[in-house]
This record gives sequence, C-alpha cells and structure tokens, in this order.
Amino acid sequence: MTLGFELKTRDGRARRGSLTTAHGTIETPTFMPVGTAATVKAMTPEDVRATGAEILLCNTYHLMLRPGAERVAKLGGLHRFMNWPGPILTDSGGYQVMSLAELRKLNEEGVTFRSHLDGSKHLLTPERSIRIQHLLDATIAMCFDECTPYPATEEQAAASMRLSMRWAKRSKDAFAPRLGYGLFGIVQGGVHPGLREESAKALIAIGFDGYAIGGLAVGEGTELMLSTLDATEPLLPADRPRYLMGVGKPSDLVAAVARGVDMFDCVLPTRSGRTAQAFTRSGTLNLRNARHADDPGPLDPRCRCPACRSYSRAYLHHLTKANEILGAMLLTRHNLTYYQDLMAQMRAAIETGRFAAFLAGFEKEETKESVEMSQSSQT
Amino acid sequence: MTLGFELKTRDGRARRGSLTTAHGTIETPTFMPVGTAATVKAMTPEDVRATGAEILLCNTYHLMLRPGAERVAKLGGLHRFMNWPGPILTDSGGYQVMSLAELRKLNEEGVTFRSHLDGSKHLLTPERSIRIQHLLDATIAMCFDECTPYPATEEQAAASMRLSMRWAKRSKDAFAPRLGYGLFGIVQGGVHPGLREESAKALIAIGFDGYAIGGLAVGEGTELMLSTLDATEPLLPADRPRYLMGVGKPSDLVAAVARGVDMFDCVLPTRSGRTAQAFTRSGTLNLRNARHADDPGPLDPRCRCPACRSYSRAYLHHLTKANEILGAMLLTRHNLTYYQDLMAQMRAAIETGRFAAFLAGFEKEETKESVEMSQSSQT
Repeated sequence: MTLGFELKTRDGRARRGSLTTAHGTIETPTFMPVGTAATVKAMTPEDVRATGAEILLCNTYHLMLRPGAERVAKLGGLHRFMNWPGPILTDSGGYQVMSLAELRKLNEEGVTFRSHLDGSKHLLTPERSIRIQHLLDATIAMCFDECTPYPATEEQAAASMRLSMRWAKRSKDAFAPRLGYGLFGIVQGGVHPGLREESAKALIAIGFDGYAIGGLAVGEGTELMLSTLDATEPLLPADRPRYLMGVGKPSDLVAAVARGVDMFDCVLPTRSGRTAQAFTRSGTLNLRNARHADDPGPLDPRCRCPACRSYSRAYLHHLTKANEILGAMLLTRHNLTYYQDLMAQMRAAIETGRFAAFLAGFEKEETKESVEMSQSSQT
Repeated sequence: MTLGFELKTRDGRARRGSLTTAHGTIETPTFMPVGTAATVKAMTPEDVRATGAEILLCNTYHLMLRPGAERVAKLGGLHRFMNWPGPILTDSGGYQVMSLAELRKLNEEGVTFRSHLDGSKHLLTPERSIRIQHLLDATIAMCFDECTPYPATEEQAAASMRLSMRWAKRSKDAFAPRLGYGLFGIVQGGVHPGLREESAKALIAIGFDGYAIGGLAVGEGTELMLSTLDATEPLLPADRPRYLMGVGKPSDLVAAVARGVDMFDCVLPTRSGRTAQAFTRSGTLNLRNARHADDPGPLDPRCRCPACRSYSRAYLHHLTKANEILGAMLLTRHNLTYYQDLMAQMRAAIETGRFAAFLAGFEKEETKESVEMSQSSQT
C-alpha cells in the first residue's frame, strides 16, 4: 500500500484513525472542504488551515477545463499552484461531467462532452482521468466511475455499477503508484444491497488504498442513505479508510461516523457561507433574516472563529443584506470551523470511548436545527 | 483644536506630519482605503491593517440608508460595528446624494432624495449630516457641501461654492467638539482660482480642524487639477492637515504630495482589485490578459503582500478568469499594499530631504504605467 492508514481505536462502529500521505498526516474521521477550481471559495489557504482542515478536495472536471491539467503540471502541480502544501484529494470528473457538461455521450470507452465554459469537445476515460489527476499531483486520486442516477431500476443500477467496476480496473491499471500517494475505488450499486456487495467485492479484488461509497445523497433521502451505508460498510476492509462522497449535513456526518465512515466532503459549509446560512450549536441561521438586524451578540458564543470572536450578528446581517464579499468570507470561515470542530469533537469522543454520549447530546441539539433554513431560498 | 497635528518637516512643498486622534495617530501623507458600507470590500480589518493603512473612509450616504446611523450608534458606533478600532473619516453624504440618489432636489435647506436601495424618501441637511456622522462616531467628520459639477460656468461654480460655505457654517454650528475628534471644511470653487480663494477664506474664518479640497478629479483632467491645487494649497493654514478628496491614481498622489497635500482617499485600489487590475512597480497589469496564463512569477517581485509572496501570476490569472472571490481578495490586498508602500516611501523621502529624487525616480517608472489598463473595460 502506498498510503499508510493506522486504525487507532474504535468505539462501537465509529473509527479513529490517521492517514499518512506524501503531503502530511490526516486525523480521521476528517472533513475535506471543497476547493473546486483550485480555491476554497472566499478563503485563503491560511484561512482554511486555521479552521482545522487537513485535506482539501478539488474537482478534476473544473480543473481540466480551466486552467488545464497540463498547465497546472508545468506550474509545479496543484499544491504549489494554489499554495496548499497539505494533502489534496481529487475526484475523477465522473460525477460532474454528467451533471455539468453539455451534449455528453457515455459508452464503454468513457464520456465525450462539451465544456460548459466554452463548448470545446472533450473525452474523459478512466485512463485520461487518472492522467489528469497525476498531472494535478493529487495526493489521493479517485477511480473514474459513473455516479448512478437516482431513481434507477435495479437493472439500470446493475449495468451502471458493472461499467464502473470495469472502469475501476482500467483506473487501477493506469495509476502509477508512488509512496505517499493513493488511489481509491468507489462502491456503486444504488440503494440495492446485493449490488453494493457485488461492487465492494469487485473493488477489493482489484485492490485500492481506500474505498469510497458513491451514489448516495443524490435524492434517496436520509433513511435509504443510512440503510445503504449500513449494508455497505461491513463489506469494506477494516484496515483501509472509507470515504462517503458528497456528504453532507452535520447530522449526516455524525450518523455516518457512527457507521464507520472516515472521510467526507461537501460543498454545504462553503456554499452556505455565500448564501447567508450559518451552522451554529443552537441551530442553523439565515443571517438575512431581519431579526438579526439589531442583535449585538455573536453568531455562536461557543465558536472560536473570527466571525464569532470579532463581529455581531447585526454586522453579519448588514454584510449579507449589502451583498458584501466580507459576509461570504466570514460566514465561510465560520461554517468550515463549525464542521472541523464537529469532526474534532467526534475524534475526541471516539478516542475516549464516549461516542454514544456524544451522539445522544448531538441528536438533542440537532432537533433545533433548520429553524431558518426554509427561508434561505426566498431571500 | 480638538485634533492634534504636528508638522514634522517639509521638503520643498511636500509635508511630513502626524495627526493625533481619539482612535490613534496617523502618519502623513496618508492614504485612506474606502470602506463604503462599513467594510473595505473583500478585506477583513486585519487584512487592511496589514497593508499599512492607519485610517479608513466610510460613506455617510450608504450607511444612513443601510444599516442606518441610529442602528450603528445603538450597536456601539462604527469602530465596534466593523471591528476597526483605528480612526475613521466619514464623508458628508453630499457627493453621493448627488451621484447615486434618485429624484434629488436641492435648495437652501439641503437635499431631499429617494434612496437608490428602496425608494424611501430622505432629507439631508448640514445639521442632519453632522448628526449622522456623530451617530456613526466618525473620528473626522466632513462639512456637508455640494460638489460642484464639472463643467460649470464661473457663475454656477460661484453660486454652488457660496451655498457650500453657508452649509459649512451650519455644519460647524451643528458639530459637537470632543477631544480627539475633528471637523474638516471643504474648499470648493471649481477650477477658478478666485473662487477657490474666496472659499478658503470663508472656511478659515469659520475655523476647522483640517481643510479638504473638493470638486477635483471630476473630469477636469490632470493639468487643471494640479493647477487648481497649485492655486489653492497656499491659501490653507500650514498648521492644519490638507485632504484632497477622491484622489486618485498613484501619479496623482505623488503630484499632490509634492504640492503639500497630507491626506487622500480613493476607491481605485479596491475597485481595481475586484476588476483584475493590479498596480505594480513595473506598470499596471490586467490579470485577465492571456499572457499571464503560464507565468510562474509573482505579480511584483518587490512587493511584500501575500498575493506576491505566495502566488504566481498564472494563479491570479486563473482566479480572475474564473471570477473567484479569492482573486478579488488577493488583488485588493496587493493594490492597497502598493498604495500604502507608496505613501511610506514618500514619507521616508520627505523625512530625509530626498523627495525631489523620489519624484524623479517615480516619474521615470511611471511612464511604464497603464500598459494594460485600456483592456480592462473589455474583459
């Protein structure tokens, strides 16, 4: 194995580990902020690091189109390009090519599509995806796969998963192993436990540095997501990290850590920061709400982030109403700090065998969540 | 006088001083970044301070409409609201009410107008402007005046200036003096030396903590601006600070310091930072220009700012092409650092009697300026 993973302790199914890479060690469970176009939006890398983040996710689809993988390679790789010396995981482009690109056509070879930026024509295959991820100098690369749409019949989900498994083998063959770098496989199979089992076995037979669970949080709802996770997680090797892709809300992270997941990524904290949404220990707030206009108190009195230490809710309300960039900067810092502190609390709880107590306390707090979320799309 | 001003030394007509206020001391000549809506756009206050800025300008017109002066007062004043403990100068609202507000009507009493934000009706008078500036807790308040439009006939300029002088008296009467706080008068009179003299004499008779030169950089061109400055500056008391409002380009700052001006403000460095323009020691650059796409070098190798220390021109090009907020953040930091370093160089040159040499060196560099500026409006 080219990535070191130490499983330090367990508490129930929750796992506390550390993942050693060429670019540094990551304490797990971990949350990866999303830096789509080689920047975590509205944050400097120093700001991101200060939230507690140890690894970022960047998007192959966006970077292959702009600025281009060959260009990033010539400029010394993604770490140097974006001034983030720590680990970077890149996705394979498979998900976004199907959700963002135009005129896409999928066959056994791969996906042809036109760029959503300039209409230029591209072909993405397992081999090309891995080559791009090498050019970007990704610490952790992902297999090229098809994220099975939801809903899908079992037949559709099976055909899609089996294509992804053939692509997983081609991805592995194209991957050039190096010490401290790794390649993760992605379990597909929709919400069908039998297909998930077939997929997990196929990936394990190929052999990967870590195993991701894909195709969830795509509309199936929390209950089906968690039951699919319950069915999938026991199939994965205990000595390798597990990564639940694109998840999620704070309550999803907690529920998935409780089910043995080690790694997460999601745009929710950063995107919410740019739309005036703030995650706090006493609920999720919409800062555009007029009730904050005269509030001299901090966003979250128990938070250590700059937005909470130095500014009032009234000021944050003003910034979001005036569409000031500083509003996005401060709320993104806050949300990522909230996410990182949540992960740190879970790591500490697992280490000390108190995860069940943490879970009970979180669920009690969590009933207060989403108080103002319903207003977010209207303002 | 409620503001302390020490004129430390002169070099030719250039002056080196320090202005002591309730919120800290400002070394002059100084450049004030503009924080229109109680935020210097795309910057935290710590970022602004790190550029070397000692005093900010905020806009009365914007703040009276949103979040409202009474609200800011209840929240502890502008310094606390925006987390900038240093000095703040507020303009009077007179300039912006005429350039931004709708359905404005000017008479002897003041200006009635409708808000450009929500159409609400307002009356701004000298008394109300000063009251608002007190509510904001402005370290330095400005007299309410009419910025004479350009072009204007001598008769129009005279009538406008005389109205501003009557308003200056009403502003002074409405101002409640406090130690470390001050009120500046504003010399008007267009490009007519006789009117400028009449205006300066009227203001000196009333008596102010500092004297601003208004109504310049409104379309008259550099030559007329500098000749009007040449005619106006000798009329002003040597023992009080002089502030050239809304100016300007780096070359304007240098030419005005050479003519005895102590204080400046302008949106140029911050606005340019949001439109991919960068001021450097080797010219003004448009970062969207394709020639930067593969350039691994820094924006300005002689600059100390984070954008120059940690990023390539290629990365800044990428951020600006992708409309990433980090592009605005980094280029604004750079431009404000450039402006502050320029002021620091001028202060050092005056202190050591080398201002003429500085001026000659700057003018030599300056011929390289504006290389890519012409492309800025097209991209």
